[in-house]
Amino acid sequence: MLGTCLDAVRQQSPLIHNITNYVTVNDVANMVLACGASPIMADDPGEVEEITALCKGLNINIGTLNSRTVASMEKAGRKANELHKAVLLDPVGAGASRLRTETALELMQEIQFDVIRGNMSEIRTLAGESGNSRGVDVSDGDAITEQNLYEKAEFAADFAVQTGSIIAITGAVDLVTDGKNCYFIHNGRPQMQKITGTGCQLSGLMTAFLAANPGNYLEAAAAAVCAMGLAGQIAWQHMEPWEGNATYRNRIIDAVSHMTGSILEEGAEYELR
Amino acid sequence: MLGTCLDAVRQQSPLIHNITNYVTVNDVANMVLACGASPIMADDPGEVEEITALCKGLNINIGTLNSRTVASMEKAGRKANELHKAVLLDPVGAGASRLRTETALELMQEIQFDVIRGNMSEIRTLAGESGNSRGVDVSDGDAITEQNLYEKAEFAADFAVQTGSIIAITGAVDLVTDGKNCYFIHNGRPQMQKITGTGCQLSGLMTAFLAANPGNYLEAAAAAVCAMGLAGQIAWQHMEPWEGNATYRNRIIDAVSHMTGSILEEGAEYELR
Amino acid sequence: MLGTCLDAVRQQSPLIHNITNYVTVNDVANMVLACGASPIMADDPGEVEEITALCKGLNINIGTLNSRTVASMEKAGRKANELHKAVLLDPVGAGASRLRTETALELMQEIQFDVIRGNMSEIRTLAGESGNSRGVDVSDGDAITEQNLYEKAEFAADFAVQTGSIIAITGAVDLVTDGKNCYFIHNGRPQMQKITGTGCQLSGLMTAFLAANPGNYLEAAAAAVCAMGLAGQIAWQHMEPWEGNATYRNRIIDAVSHMTGSILEEGAEYELR
Repeated sequence: MLGTCLDAVRQQSPLIHNITNYVTVNDVANMVLACGASPIMADDPGEVEEITALCKGLNINIGTLNSRTVASMEKAGRKANELHKAVLLDPVGAGASRLRTETALELMQEIQFDVIRGNMSEIRTLAGESGNSRGVDVSDGDAITEQNLYEKAEFAADFAVQTGSIIAITGAVDLVTDGKNCYFIHNGRPQMQKITGTGCQLSGLMTAFLAANPGNYLEAAAAAVCAMGLAGQIAWQHMEPWEGNATYRNRIIDAVSHMTGSILEEGAEYELR
Repeated sequence: MLGTCLDAVRQQSPLIHNITNYVTVNDVANMVLACGASPIMADDPGEVEEITALCKGLNINIGTLNSRTVASMEKAGRKANELHKAVLLDPVGAGASRLRTETALELMQEIQFDVIRGNMSEIRTLAGESGNSRGVDVSDGDAITEQNLYEKAEFAADFAVQTGSIIAITGAVDLVTDGKNCYFIHNGRPQMQKITGTGCQLSGLMTAFLAANPGNYLEAAAAAVCAMGLAGQIAWQHMEPWEGNATYRNRIIDAVSHMTGSILEEGAEYELR
Repeated sequence: MLGTCLDAVRQQSPLIHNITNYVTVNDVANMVLACGASPIMADDPGEVEEITALCKGLNINIGTLNSRTVASMEKAGRKANELHKAVLLDPVGAGASRLRTETALELMQEIQFDVIRGNMSEIRTLAGESGNSRGVDVSDGDAITEQNLYEKAEFAADFAVQTGSIIAITGAVDLVTDGKNCYFIHNGRPQMQKITGTGCQLSGLMTAFLAANPGNYLEAAAAAVCAMGLAGQIAWQHMEPWEGNATYRNRIIDAVSHMTGSILEEGAEYELR
């Protein structure tokens, strides 16, 4: 039951450590608050281990990485593994530069991530395929469509087995798989791509869902994807004709703040195979 | 008269130097603009002294500190003291890591702050009590309630005397004291805690109030707390049922932008003892 | 035709590399998305050259510069010149500190900017005049008015010739000149100054317009200024009486997201001399 994953977040209000980019960090914090969890942002090597130890989950996002924050990501990630905290990687822009690609791969070698969440171009880069990149967006050739859905799901499942991580790939259809089972998720609206940081926000939300649902990570990750997409659908209903991406951004976070387990349960559109 | 403190900000439009975290920095800037002042953000050691000298007040917030910005905080703070500019400390997350606690304590040793503003967990940490921490939020055991109000006020007054700073502690009831007198402030709404950065915004706002009201810091600090809380109450009246924390964030800043001295005077709910 | 400059952005959806301040970076990203382009933010010296090479335009904004990001600005700018990509300088706060002034001047020596966009105080500082500074805002003495318009335009034209850059100066009337011709632009509303980052957003928007209109930079720069000002006018029509600067910020980005070439063509208010 996906709805119970959200209920668990609201009941436990887990503290979530985010090492994330400065572009979308405010939205990530407000999204984590909206779902009932509590965010803390800290990226100095001198404090990240303590902060991770204080928290229930760790969200690592390489969106505006630099040498100082990469060192922090490594320290925090190892501490999360040591203490068996939920830890997620969002490889923003992997493939757009060697620094991002190599950093993501190094993090994957040093840290066992519970979930890796990105778009298809980013995930293909991590799997050693392709050099396609449209910066932080998915390249056209990598888009998930109804036509290539099962081929993409097979790729994702293989990569999940290889990494031992749940792989969550967002697109027109979203895939969440642990290698054995795969959620195909149809929530969301295309306009969400025209807002900066919906992916980053989902990573923060998902880390909160993981932290509150230990032992049930696949379902928790899928529930977070459904919740984000459903929020995008609910938010769209309240848009006036003259409102655009900046207002839509706010309404999506608002929609999460009002979402209950039963709203999520009823609104989630997915198949599990 | 608290209202005149706001009028003074709008008349003088003081320039405010903020060394603050990257999570809520945009909201701080928009809040400082909303009250009629003008913000500048600068955190490189190579320029902070000049920027402080150019400004009327300095707001130091340790929310996402790192070694480079800590050095800047020290330089800017000493310059502010030297030139008798208003200077405020917001010890975000003190108690959550040794780095934050020690940085806050070191800053307090090197700089004479006019106001220290935080939640009860942060202020207790600075006073050498407790190790309670829920990250950047107050821990349940430290919350100010109607029951423990006078005990907490006595603690705050003692700490004000010890530090020579006005102490402003925000919670269900807010306390602002210089050790002799204490404002007990009842403005605000609990939903404000579900927005990231209302505390940071208040610190920016308060620095603007201090800068425009030299020689009247206790009242200015109390007026800022009342203004922020009252804005939260006004903003709530305009919320549609489907709107949540992201929209509420905007409406609070909007409410400050329309606030006049007389609106503040009429809406402020406080006792002075 | 200014409208076709916007149409070109929507058709080509150019990728724009932004090295910009952490205060307004989220708004810049959402603004670049709103006009139909795609933003990427990257400021580590280890990746900026690759990112610039991947993109069609580079937006350099010194709003919260530090030694690490200054090195990145230089590397990225030289790469942009080498590959003939559109490159813009926004000298935020030049004149407010020696670090900012010297950094801007050094960047201008090493990089041939296609456009330099700032307020009159910033541009006068770069031209070696004045020490006026009100932080990141224009000082009163430097404001462009109907009275001093032609004198200011002559100054801007001289500086354009001297630098070989298009000079765009925003104020009550905006000036965009390449030294031979000058656009005098009357779009916009004074309330836009009460929002942090409208200048930064314009710089992002303008870089997108440049990138999509090679060989037509003067018109593209003017079109971006008109689009931003017109968005401010359209957004104002949808403001409720209780709404203020935070909501206005969102509505301006929203208005750009709905703007078409013909809306811009009809709404643009300018003379070209």
